[in-house]
Amino acid sequence: MNMAEKKYILYLLDADKWASPFDINVAYDAGFDVVIPYGSVTAETIRTLVEDAMFSRGLDGAQRTKIFLNGSDLNVVRDMLKTARKSMVTPFDLSIFVDPRGGYTTGSAMVAQVEAYLNKIGKTSFEGLKVVVFGGTGPVGQVVSVLCAQNGAEVVLLSRRQEKAERIAGELKELYKVDLIPKANGDDPQRVETCKDADIIFTCGTAGIQLVSLNVLKQLPKNKILADVNAVPPLGIEGINVNKKNKEHPEVPGLYYHGALSVGSVKLKVEKKGLKALMTAEGKKTFDFVDFFDTARKVYAKKKAKKAEKQKA
Amino acid sequence: MNMAEKKYILYLLDADKWASPFDINVAYDAGFDVVIPYGSVTAETIRTLVEDAMFSRGLDGAQRTKIFLNGSDLNVVRDMLKTARKSMVTPFDLSIFVDPRGGYTTGSAMVAQVEAYLNKIGKTSFEGLKVVVFGGTGPVGQVVSVLCAQNGAEVVLLSRRQEKAERIAGELKELYKVDLIPKANGDDPQRVETCKDADIIFTCGTAGIQLVSLNVLKQLPKNKILADVNAVPPLGIEGINVNKKNKEHPEVPGLYYHGALSVGSVKLKVEKKGLKALMTAEGKKTFDFVDFFDTARKVYAKKKAKKAEKQKA
Amino acid sequence: MNMAEKKYILYLLDADKWASPFDINVAYDAGFDVVIPYGSVTAETIRTLVEDAMFSRGLDGAQRTKIFLNGSDLNVVRDMLKTARKSMVTPFDLSIFVDPRGGYTTGSAMVAQVEAYLNKIGKTSFEGLKVVVFGGTGPVGQVVSVLCAQNGAEVVLLSRRQEKAERIAGELKELYKVDLIPKANGDDPQRVETCKDADIIFTCGTAGIQLVSLNVLKQLPKNKILADVNAVPPLGIEGINVNKKNKEHPEVPGLYYHGALSVGSVKLKVEKKGLKALMTAEGKKTFDFVDFFDTARKVYAKKKAKKAEKQKA
Repeated sequence: MNMAEKKYILYLLDADKWASPFDINVAYDAGFDVVIPYGSVTAETIRTLVEDAMFSRGLDGAQRTKIFLNGSDLNVVRDMLKTARKSMVTPFDLSIFVDPRGGYTTGSAMVAQVEAYLNKIGKTSFEGLKVVVFGGTGPVGQVVSVLCAQNGAEVVLLSRRQEKAERIAGELKELYKVDLIPKANGDDPQRVETCKDADIIFTCGTAGIQLVSLNVLKQLPKNKILADVNAVPPLGIEGINVNKKNKEHPEVPGLYYHGALSVGSVKLKVEKKGLKALMTAEGKKTFDFVDFFDTARKVYAKKKAKKAEKQKA
Repeated sequence: MNMAEKKYILYLLDADKWASPFDINVAYDAGFDVVIPYGSVTAETIRTLVEDAMFSRGLDGAQRTKIFLNGSDLNVVRDMLKTARKSMVTPFDLSIFVDPRGGYTTGSAMVAQVEAYLNKIGKTSFEGLKVVVFGGTGPVGQVVSVLCAQNGAEVVLLSRRQEKAERIAGELKELYKVDLIPKANGDDPQRVETCKDADIIFTCGTAGIQLVSLNVLKQLPKNKILADVNAVPPLGIEGINVNKKNKEHPEVPGLYYHGALSVGSVKLKVEKKGLKALMTAEGKKTFDFVDFFDTARKVYAKKKAKKAEKQKA
Repeated sequence: MNMAEKKYILYLLDADKWASPFDINVAYDAGFDVVIPYGSVTAETIRTLVEDAMFSRGLDGAQRTKIFLNGSDLNVVRDMLKTARKSMVTPFDLSIFVDPRGGYTTGSAMVAQVEAYLNKIGKTSFEGLKVVVFGGTGPVGQVVSVLCAQNGAEVVLLSRRQEKAERIAGELKELYKVDLIPKANGDDPQRVETCKDADIIFTCGTAGIQLVSLNVLKQLPKNKILADVNAVPPLGIEGINVNKKNKEHPEVPGLYYHGALSVGSVKLKVEKKGLKALMTAEGKKTFDFVDFFDTARKVYAKKKAKKAEKQKA
């Protein structure tokens, strides 16, 4: 059997009960020949799975054997990643793709989309902007907070409880060397206080939970961007259309929003491009939201270039 | 990647612990590129699975993504179907194949086989015939009862307990608008009483349970058809050969029987043709026993035509 | 659909929670088109799985449908095998591959490797040799004990407890008609006593458990072969290199050892060749360690021939 014949095999290792059909579909569409899901994987059990996957196909086979880590608990996924990487034995290392319940690709795509439309409020980059992240302790919220901070924004990370906001901000500082300002949501007057100086407000909370009401929005100064990742009504931001992007809020002029579903096609594109790149990645390269943000930015840059060309023609 | 390259993916969503190798085999042989089994699916968890399968491949991908619903509890499968269909978002709808533990294909094939050999008792259709269905509350029994009633027969649905027969008959009336006569099995004299006017007696009970004894058979008038779906001894009907079809009962002349395994190859053909049709089906088309009965009838019609041609030649 | 198009499908039926990525990888690399893992299979549930796999593809399909039995409890796997074989219905029989947690291929490869280097102690075959097997009650230990005995050695099967050694020796006598001498490990002086006349000492214990200390080794007469299957430190034999084969012990001259990992590439080759053979095997042919030993011997014979040719050139 020559190298050309060996199949591309992806192991979907999920801390939750099930791997998702979403990721299975995208992996096959990206070009993998075989996708094998494992559910209820833990940081303890992942070691044997990785070793067994690594040592059974020779060197050329290891190069075509890949790992996708998933799970709704970010800390569990981080522990799985740590153990998986420690289990690798060079030169048999397997490349790894990390996208916990889609949060890394979704968060990256949303931040890139907001960046692509910053001109709406007269800005061109996150550098020096004030960003508020409701639901900042969840998977998407953490990604959004870290990416904005890494790109120069001052970020307030919000949670229902001050103590949880502080714990997560501490973890993210340790993991990604970013300084975030932890804060409790508080009541409407407190939310107005937190948001009034912000350039961008992200709502990354649980599905079906409203985080920013019309009452709050109406008390805010103009010229802000709002971005929601909750696609299940009631939405995270009151009064917006879940499918629209870069639209003025119908009841609060001067506030421009991005609905949760408006980022769906770019999220999908980012995941698919990432999995394609994973297929040919070398060594124990790990793909996470930093890579996904880079890809998402290129997608929006290409869109902008196309649009500009169209307008010229 | 152009459309021609996207794989045909089938999600086998099973309410029981495991998807069956039977369905996996048939799906691959029908032409699917990838078959992904999920066990222990519920009416609650199916929603996310369907949404994830639906929204992750674009429109051309959704067209090549299909659902197979399975499970030994018919009501659970019906609830799964209801939720799955409600979760669909046009134009991303996924087509669905329903065959709970093989009962829909098996029942359809058996009814079509009995119909194909009605000439044995001087009949050509179910119209106006009297049909008795032992084990009428099980998956196969329900399919047999509904199909016979839909095709004009007067159907007695039997169960060990009168109350269960009534409940199931009520459910089937609501679901399929058919009138069935619910009745308890009773003892041998009562079974004779129930069967004496019947043209056809189906036994669709649990594997290894005899439902019609020689004692009962010998007290029945001649010119009846018997059909059994229980392949595990003791069979549902005493004294028959599980592999034979359209044979006279060796100890009771004038009664003609169909053994459980005699329908196996047509059941398999019906499932395979159904899964082939599923591959290219459009929208949220749902394949169930009505489609399977139609296919099974065509299989028997073709057999008959072939035989006739052979006899002419 | 013609025969040439039907896919080669392998069902990995595992008594443990999970099928291993190791076996999945090797099966795909051997040429299977589809590998379907089932975990937590039992001797009770395997019957339906085998029947469903057997009867759903026609005769030509059954010929391309194969079973791989796995599990860490040898007796459970043996029961699964018995039930699986009993469930077969000729001519639909499915061929079976048995390799419980890799023990059959690993044990076979190690025995063949030791045999290939017997010249180190002036021998050419196991005939009449004295063999001691520490950890003889585990999966690899049982395979090693039986293979050595079948090839003419006098084998001492060791366990921590005398009673367990006796029970397993009894089971192996019944299953494979071999006479083994059961014995407890005992303390260091007793181990010296057991090993002093041995030509070969295998250590097949649990990962991370030392079975033969330097203290024991130093009290043994020269001219012996040591072979370890434990790759996790502390190794089964003190002071050896896990990657090396046929090396003199650095601290005890005259003792020649084989480290656990030195057999890895041949084990992999044996499993892959076995699975290739499984693809085209006929009837209910069962592949187990006797077949694997035969394959492993051929691998070493070929290596030797190549080396000889090289030296001539």
